[in-house]
Amino acid sequence: MERVAIIGASMTQFGQRDAWLRELLVEAGEAALADANVTGAALDHLYVSNMASGEFEGQTGVANALAHDLAATPAYTARVDQTSASGGAGVYAAWQSVASGVSDCTLLVGGEKMTHRSTAEATDVIASLTHPVEYKHGVTLPSFAGLTARHYLETYDAPRESLGKVAVKNHANGVDNPHAQFRKQVDLETVLESPIVADPLRLYDFCPITDGSAALVCCPVSVADEYVNEDEYVVISGIGGATDTHVVHERADLTTMGGVRDSAAIAYEMADVGPDDVDVAELHDMFTILEFLQSEDLGFFEKGAGWRAVEDGVTERDGDLPINTSGGLKSKGHPLGASGVAQVYEVVNQVRGTAGPRQVDADVGLACNVGGFGNCVTTTVVEGAQ
Amino acid sequence: MERVAIIGASMTQFGQRDAWLRELLVEAGEAALADANVTGAALDHLYVSNMASGEFEGQTGVANALAHDLAATPAYTARVDQTSASGGAGVYAAWQSVASGVSDCTLLVGGEKMTHRSTAEATDVIASLTHPVEYKHGVTLPSFAGLTARHYLETYDAPRESLGKVAVKNHANGVDNPHAQFRKQVDLETVLESPIVADPLRLYDFCPITDGSAALVCCPVSVADEYVNEDEYVVISGIGGATDTHVVHERADLTTMGGVRDSAAIAYEMADVGPDDVDVAELHDMFTILEFLQSEDLGFFEKGAGWRAVEDGVTERDGDLPINTSGGLKSKGHPLGASGVAQVYEVVNQVRGTAGPRQVDADVGLACNVGGFGNCVTTTVVEGAQ
Repeated sequence: MERVAIIGASMTQFGQRDAWLRELLVEAGEAALADANVTGAALDHLYVSNMASGEFEGQTGVANALAHDLAATPAYTARVDQTSASGGAGVYAAWQSVASGVSDCTLLVGGEKMTHRSTAEATDVIASLTHPVEYKHGVTLPSFAGLTARHYLETYDAPRESLGKVAVKNHANGVDNPHAQFRKQVDLETVLESPIVADPLRLYDFCPITDGSAALVCCPVSVADEYVNEDEYVVISGIGGATDTHVVHERADLTTMGGVRDSAAIAYEMADVGPDDVDVAELHDMFTILEFLQSEDLGFFEKGAGWRAVEDGVTERDGDLPINTSGGLKSKGHPLGASGVAQVYEVVNQVRGTAGPRQVDADVGLACNVGGFGNCVTTTVVEGAQ
Repeated sequence: MERVAIIGASMTQFGQRDAWLRELLVEAGEAALADANVTGAALDHLYVSNMASGEFEGQTGVANALAHDLAATPAYTARVDQTSASGGAGVYAAWQSVASGVSDCTLLVGGEKMTHRSTAEATDVIASLTHPVEYKHGVTLPSFAGLTARHYLETYDAPRESLGKVAVKNHANGVDNPHAQFRKQVDLETVLESPIVADPLRLYDFCPITDGSAALVCCPVSVADEYVNEDEYVVISGIGGATDTHVVHERADLTTMGGVRDSAAIAYEMADVGPDDVDVAELHDMFTILEFLQSEDLGFFEKGAGWRAVEDGVTERDGDLPINTSGGLKSKGHPLGASGVAQVYEVVNQVRGTAGPRQVDADVGLACNVGGFGNCVTTTVVEGAQ
């Protein structure tokens, strides 16, 4: 198994963008190639992670188009879709292409263009990922989140305010992220008094609809220093993916995400690290409640103790384990196919020391990308080259 | 690089199916697992190759759903899309998962459900894979095929009848394939007098709109005999993918498919074989003209000599190099995400001697899956285990 380095990383401005997906992919792709000191001609594999370009824009073949636009032909291309975890699946595909020995240089570009559709239309496309048994009863991901949040608060005797503090923390981090959709500090009162979406969750417990793209360039560690200096690349030391029941109501416990636990176990074993070794993490806070669940199922905190870590400031930027220094999906935005790539972009910057005003002290970073309501998960561990 | 075995293979009945994609995927998946003597619980990776379930059915998350339906949870899942070459891209993804060392048992299921939509609707979804510059001028894949066919016939002084003989040959093969959409012998006169679609090509020069699914089970060669006997599995000895210009009109020569040539070069090198070593091949005869181009760009025949090979009977089942013994896309049908998988299913059966009345003498088989109008191609070489 070839060890895999990330030698370039980028993300575009997230938010409401006056550009088509194709243009966003080119923007992120060119920036990542520049970061890696290569051109499209150096690529032999090119993956695009994207959930629904056909449904959102009536455009397919987006990976082929990108190979053309980046002058990467005849590089192999494919699109990888794993619903809201498409980005993580793209990272795994790029990793496999290098790890299997067939690629000397792979570009992954994740992206989604959504804001030209109404929130109702976008939500309906996203809801089409649920099992038909649940979809036909009108179940959407926000409704699962509301049910889970209520169950969590009651089971673990957690205050409603603790959920709100996730939003406050992530918005505070987003202020320092120039690519974030919302660079706006919010206070707890604003969160707790925002309109109800799925009781007990309110507007500020949810991530927005977002356009954007993010990209990574990967190569074998053995040749990484031919492209960049040793302190400019990082290593994917562990990566794993797993599913949980596609029918959410069949799970034994709504407050445990089996896919997070199982994918992390694979990634930790490959990297030969444990949760205590992780210095910084990007979690999939599509809903505030998910940050609690993932922080527990990744082993950072005991089951039912994730909310206390937030209350105690452990996960703030100056805490023992900063979570979502990028602002998270909550303030940075959630362009489905880009999100998992942008998570890795953040931990790459934290580990190589290029996170600017968001910089924390980090040797080991972790990104956890969740599809559906934990239906499929990819966990990636990133470490410095030394 | 771990060597990769195929220990199970299946395809469903192709044609107009009274079933949703989800049901077709389960049908093929269960059959392939049974062929490999395993259950869903043995899987650690599961890929679905599919172009457009969201556009055709309004259903996404199909890979997650299949993991659930096959009781394969917590196996990792993802969907792979590479337009009409999605199946080949799925084979490559499954191969990479095993070759990289992270999978002990991977299932790939390709499928598409299309016939519930009108031919115009289905054609429009497929046309969305072309470059917007061409799409907005109304260019569809059949129109490219017509232009290319005329150019080929004039450049290489080939008779129109030679194209028709591709259809006659592939229909003859399809009669012996119980899974084919059309098990109907046609004569040359019928082909040449069928309605014009894109001059000089007529109705019988085109593959149909099809529902169907096909599946493969892969594992490391080192453990293949734990699942099946040595004569029951085959080895993917070579695999490669490549793109050509996404804008078709930018190509130097319409009668050369660069993606076929480049993907085959990679696959031949990995397998340490050349075109002369290939005993049987499945080519992507979405249009009859494509069988000529691929048979030349794969190196089977000189450029411009593919039509003569058909005229001389070389590519018939009792010829020196049988092509499309399955009936090809022409008579077997073309459910986009399934086609590349079904091509490999045929060569697996030819190499392991389970092709029934279609059996030819074959140690080395090759499958060439083309996306768009050669925009992206995957070539796979399969050999016996001995």
